[in-house]
Amino acid sequence: MNTNTAKIKVRYNETDQMGVVYHGNYAQYFEIGRTEWLRNLGINYKDMEISGIILPVISLNCNFKKSALYDDELTIYTTLKKVPTVKIEFDYRIENQHKELICIGNTTLAFLDKTSKRPIRCPEYVLEKLKMNK
Amino acid sequence: MNTNTAKIKVRYNETDQMGVVYHGNYAQYFEIGRTEWLRNLGINYKDMEISGIILPVISLNCNFKKSALYDDELTIYTTLKKVPTVKIEFDYRIENQHKELICIGNTTLAFLDKTSKRPIRCPEYVLEKLKMNK
Amino acid sequence: MNTNTAKIKVRYNETDQMGVVYHGNYAQYFEIGRTEWLRNLGINYKDMEISGIILPVISLNCNFKKSALYDDELTIYTTLKKVPTVKIEFDYRIENQHKELICIGNTTLAFLDKTSKRPIRCPEYVLEKLKMNK
Amino acid sequence: MNTNTAKIKVRYNETDQMGVVYHGNYAQYFEIGRTEWLRNLGINYKDMEISGIILPVISLNCNFKKSALYDDELTIYTTLKKVPTVKIEFDYRIENQHKELICIGNTTLAFLDKTSKRPIRCPEYVLEKLKMNK
Repeated sequence: MNTNTAKIKVRYNETDQMGVVYHGNYAQYFEIGRTEWLRNLGINYKDMEISGIILPVISLNCNFKKSALYDDELTIYTTLKKVPTVKIEFDYRIENQHKELICIGNTTLAFLDKTSKRPIRCPEYVLEKLKMNK
Repeated sequence: MNTNTAKIKVRYNETDQMGVVYHGNYAQYFEIGRTEWLRNLGINYKDMEISGIILPVISLNCNFKKSALYDDELTIYTTLKKVPTVKIEFDYRIENQHKELICIGNTTLAFLDKTSKRPIRCPEYVLEKLKMNK
Repeated sequence: MNTNTAKIKVRYNETDQMGVVYHGNYAQYFEIGRTEWLRNLGINYKDMEISGIILPVISLNCNFKKSALYDDELTIYTTLKKVPTVKIEFDYRIENQHKELICIGNTTLAFLDKTSKRPIRCPEYVLEKLKMNK
Repeated sequence: MNTNTAKIKVRYNETDQMGVVYHGNYAQYFEIGRTEWLRNLGINYKDMEISGIILPVISLNCNFKKSALYDDELTIYTTLKKVPTVKIEFDYRIENQHKELICIGNTTLAFLDKTSKRPIRCPEYVLEKLKMNK
């Protein structure tokens, strides 16, 4: 219900000399996952920033199960963990084109006022869109 | 005792449009931390790979406390968590030039045979160097 | 005729604190352009590497005309410049979703034997596919 | 005379599956080169941005001579090409620890007003520092 999928193709520069995707790059994949999750809900993160709200990551966790390779087509499954408050938390699961599990991860992000950098509550329009999509 | 420090200067390309270091880049900083930790112990990771042992990251955790800025001088404190077995675990703590805490993190890496990609025990010469440095 | 298009969406981590795509990231976009150009011709670069041929970039040129922004949808136009010999040369042109010119560029790549790292001629099957697609 | 040197150590994430530094990463090395060139002249680029002047790259050229490897210590030689006007142009030369030539490159940057994004002349204090250092 609260899960969205996004697809990406592994780029050459994302590999390292082990011949697999560099582990630090999964943070980018998770970001694509939650951006598309938001877009699917009708929320454009770019517009949210323009409106004065930023969503920095305050916690990142990732467990790597299997290597992803150059040109692999990865599917990122993004799930909202609970109703957002001053924070919003997502779980991720990435699989390759053979449905093999590549990694699972989790991020917590904080709603901040762009100017003051102070924590704020999740905007009402986000909570309403969440209710409508239940 | 088992803690090492490494210093890096934040590069322009490591920032994002929030005006701070992109959170995914801390994985690179942690890697520099443990590479220098190993070097300080007398172990060159490059040589370890040439000798047939690779050390992929199997778990990455990071908590972000304060943003790092372009041109900041960061100190990465890297600590071995316990005697390595088939895995090796490090804790990290990153501070800026004002001694402010930027983030804390943790990674677990697995010793693998480079060719077979099978798990192996931590090499004896690493364990011996650890004993000598106690 | 020898031009192919590929589309990408600008990722958050690709921006820097100027609020635009970091200039060094266009090398990745060009790479996506020529990979898709090859795929469109029926050539998978991944398979080429597996077959023992690598294609390192030996020259990169880029002129930046207008900034690309986060979440922009960019179109990469990739054109083969001439019949490949021991080298292959591509021209690139990147436009945003408003058909504004973002940058133009050019890369030269060398065909190398993966093991010996010696220059080799463009494989026959590539030349044949080029003839068929004229 | 107008040449400065900066040293960097190749990071693991900067390699790709060819086992060498990904060609697109040299743009970052050039940036480090010119940042240190400016610092050596007594100019902090961070402060320049804070004062309202940005220096986007408008042209990037790079010729790759030899691959750089993980953990290589690279020296970046940065040379100002001529007295800056509305633009500033640098030449780069990168060598590894064996004094082997890795690549040569060139960038042109434009002085822009940070707010209006309009071209401006090279600030007087930069020109004066240049005269003093002759």
